[in-house]
Amino acid sequence: MAVSLAEIVGRFGGELRGGGDILIDGIGTLAGAGPGRIAFLSNPRYRDQLRATRATAVILAPEAAGECPVAAIVTRQPYLYFARLSAWLNPPPDFAPGVHPSAVVESPVPPGAYVGPQAWIGPDVRLGEGVVVGAQCRIGAGSALGEESRLHPGVTIYPGCQVGRRFLAHSGSVIGADGFGFAPDEARRWVKIPQTGRVLVGDDVEIGANTTIDRGALEDTVIGDGVKLDNQIQVGHNVRIGRDTAMAGCVGIAGSATIGARCTVGGGAVILGHLEIADDVHVSAGTLVAKSIRSPGTYSGTVPFLEHGAWLKNFAHIRRLEAMSEKIRALEARLAILENRP
Amino acid sequence: MAVSLAEIVGRFGGELRGGGDILIDGIGTLAGAGPGRIAFLSNPRYRDQLRATRATAVILAPEAAGECPVAAIVTRQPYLYFARLSAWLNPPPDFAPGVHPSAVVESPVPPGAYVGPQAWIGPDVRLGEGVVVGAQCRIGAGSALGEESRLHPGVTIYPGCQVGRRFLAHSGSVIGADGFGFAPDEARRWVKIPQTGRVLVGDDVEIGANTTIDRGALEDTVIGDGVKLDNQIQVGHNVRIGRDTAMAGCVGIAGSATIGARCTVGGGAVILGHLEIADDVHVSAGTLVAKSIRSPGTYSGTVPFLEHGAWLKNFAHIRRLEAMSEKIRALEARLAILENRP
Amino acid sequence: MAVSLAEIVGRFGGELRGGGDILIDGIGTLAGAGPGRIAFLSNPRYRDQLRATRATAVILAPEAAGECPVAAIVTRQPYLYFARLSAWLNPPPDFAPGVHPSAVVESPVPPGAYVGPQAWIGPDVRLGEGVVVGAQCRIGAGSALGEESRLHPGVTIYPGCQVGRRFLAHSGSVIGADGFGFAPDEARRWVKIPQTGRVLVGDDVEIGANTTIDRGALEDTVIGDGVKLDNQIQVGHNVRIGRDTAMAGCVGIAGSATIGARCTVGGGAVILGHLEIADDVHVSAGTLVAKSIRSPGTYSGTVPFLEHGAWLKNFAHIRRLEAMSEKIRALEARLAILENRP
Repeated sequence: MAVSLAEIVGRFGGELRGGGDILIDGIGTLAGAGPGRIAFLSNPRYRDQLRATRATAVILAPEAAGECPVAAIVTRQPYLYFARLSAWLNPPPDFAPGVHPSAVVESPVPPGAYVGPQAWIGPDVRLGEGVVVGAQCRIGAGSALGEESRLHPGVTIYPGCQVGRRFLAHSGSVIGADGFGFAPDEARRWVKIPQTGRVLVGDDVEIGANTTIDRGALEDTVIGDGVKLDNQIQVGHNVRIGRDTAMAGCVGIAGSATIGARCTVGGGAVILGHLEIADDVHVSAGTLVAKSIRSPGTYSGTVPFLEHGAWLKNFAHIRRLEAMSEKIRALEARLAILENRP
Repeated sequence: MAVSLAEIVGRFGGELRGGGDILIDGIGTLAGAGPGRIAFLSNPRYRDQLRATRATAVILAPEAAGECPVAAIVTRQPYLYFARLSAWLNPPPDFAPGVHPSAVVESPVPPGAYVGPQAWIGPDVRLGEGVVVGAQCRIGAGSALGEESRLHPGVTIYPGCQVGRRFLAHSGSVIGADGFGFAPDEARRWVKIPQTGRVLVGDDVEIGANTTIDRGALEDTVIGDGVKLDNQIQVGHNVRIGRDTAMAGCVGIAGSATIGARCTVGGGAVILGHLEIADDVHVSAGTLVAKSIRSPGTYSGTVPFLEHGAWLKNFAHIRRLEAMSEKIRALEARLAILENRP
Repeated sequence: MAVSLAEIVGRFGGELRGGGDILIDGIGTLAGAGPGRIAFLSNPRYRDQLRATRATAVILAPEAAGECPVAAIVTRQPYLYFARLSAWLNPPPDFAPGVHPSAVVESPVPPGAYVGPQAWIGPDVRLGEGVVVGAQCRIGAGSALGEESRLHPGVTIYPGCQVGRRFLAHSGSVIGADGFGFAPDEARRWVKIPQTGRVLVGDDVEIGANTTIDRGALEDTVIGDGVKLDNQIQVGHNVRIGRDTAMAGCVGIAGSATIGARCTVGGGAVILGHLEIADDVHVSAGTLVAKSIRSPGTYSGTVPFLEHGAWLKNFAHIRRLEAMSEKIRALEARLAILENRP
């Protein structure tokens, strides 16, 4: 499918510089795109690539428009423009509605929905219109999946969970497994606490491959509208995540943490349980959040890496910071005595 | 199902304050429970919620009993009491014994066991009585699964692994994949070392969603009785975990670590290989254990997080701790000279 | 199968000390091997075990040969020798070629390939000769899997990915899920960026259980020949990993990181995105790599753990390093004034 720049600008806005009848048939990077492709410049660090681009057109901000050697669409938000254009040019694949004969389906499937090979849908499941259930997904009894949701192959939804519209789940993700709750008995053995809550997922949520969201212990685990979770994220029981919060891969969130709206959490961060994070908080990658964060802002807590020999020399002192601090205090006291000598 | 407080106390002990004929039909939190529910107070920080509770009854310790505005069951261990009561009120779901016609089963299934849709059970597998194999589980040749064990959908057990009784495994967990063993050859390419050991799992073990336990390289990986592993934990080859040890989500354990009994490991901790951890050791969340721990106790090694600007100022000095330490020494020497001046 | 030491030395080289007709029927550890087994000594810390070994023969280096109480094969690289011998003695299991009747296969399967129970292979998939597809694997449309590759049960390959020869993938691994790409709109909602790249995997790659490799955003994610990834590793979109690089479990790599050849990355390390790591770099376990590494070497950035009380005392000072540094400067200035007093 080739589209003209005029058609793109007609649909998505922006100021066209160059011929409206120029055709593009796909999107590429500034460095990689060839003829027929449209690229974008969002991050100023790639500005050098603009002059050398072989793309047919570029989406960029007004500040960079003067340097563009080819046709351009000028917009204040080139990255967002690119996202919308790409979503239009690359719609998710179509599925002919129906149920694959190898699927085991114990609940009604709406006429416009698709259930793939070897999927299992238990009893009393409510599937919304337009749902796509990939190969070998498993949906437990009494769960619900909203309209236009898509599960890639091998997604598991435990019984009794409620998922909103336009949900997108990648392979190996698991919604509704038991939270981790045990009480020690007199002999220090663990007595399991039944996890009787559910997982409630809002609309427009996406979760990545092998991400897990546990069901609540007594109340529910709640994922707000528009939340985006990358791969291999662990969300403990009773966690609440506010709307439009996004988390990068390998984040772990312990039970009963409450996270605000529009937060971002960098890869590999760990958020402990029974704490609160305000709206609009940004947690840097690798940071351990061990207490509540009450104010918006960016928070970090990682150590710099060093060449191993330098690391050995420097990091050993972390064990001696208290001693170092006391030495400084002692020096200050001794110095004050000297200074006060007549 | 509604039960009377008298029946509960008759079964689980504790001192009843209030009418024995009061009926409860479920459990809730102090803040969330309504009429007909029983709540519990275990953590003193929730004591304020006690006065305002709308629950019909509360399980609590003697110290708090005087403040309880409703009927109470008084016990020294309210959390354990709650766990036992909840387990009784919320038994795991029943499965009518039998093999779903879509399952592929190459081994005998005991009369009281259940094998769900599209599960695959290879040859020479021994299933104990009362086992529940969920949809799309895969059990490799020659493995064994003890009585009353339950696999949620999509669990994988590799060939030749031995799992004890009352095992509970959540979706996506994998037992017995190859450990990570390679020898570099003369050209710095990796030569795979066959992982010929097994995984041996004791009784009463629970593992969370997407947790992985690798088979041993030459000997076996051994998980003791009563061990509880949360989601997304990685257990390397030849690891040994002692009985009743519990680990929170996202812990990684490298090969040949030996971990004692009754330990707890916080979320996201990393335990390196070829080391030993004593019984009754508690590792804080996010801590890297890089050498053996010989004594019981709690061990921590994380850094505090800060607002990003403050972090930038402070953490850069970690690279200069050696220099800082030398400056202090130099100051001490110079000061001593001054102090010794006549 | 029993083989003689003469046959082993004939095949793999090394210097035989002891009778060539001695038979061995398997491999064990120095401490665990009994009669009929051959053990190896590679790490000098296990040298004490050599004298007490009950193995019938030992593979070891010339330096240790004098202390060996039993027959020996002497070689400069005992660990590599052991790996090759073990690979020969423990070949991967045979599969009778063919397609299990419960599999759903929409593409041609070569005569020597095997497709296991309940696997799904979509349309336009190219499978190489000798491929083994385990139970319940899912291979999306248009993907390719090279000769002699083996997928353990429950592996997912998304559409359009290209995998080389002798690939080995463990259960729950996912290749080609969407990278994590979103642009914020004017209302701070996330607009998904279609992930139109692929995953390209070279020859002789192994990936562990529940490891995930995302497809590229516009270009491809590229895994070089001979790369070995342990369990639960997350590889973001557009990442490039050079040949023969190996990573231990739970590593996370953010998008567009470029990692060189022959690197090793320790367990739980996090590598941020849009950076470069040179060839022959070794990243220690638990280290956060937040900027490019241009030179070969070993790099570390972790903190020592301490008994919890000692940790509380010392680690709080990390928040005060800037203040501590300023105090030292002030002391130096005050001391200089005193020193310059007449």
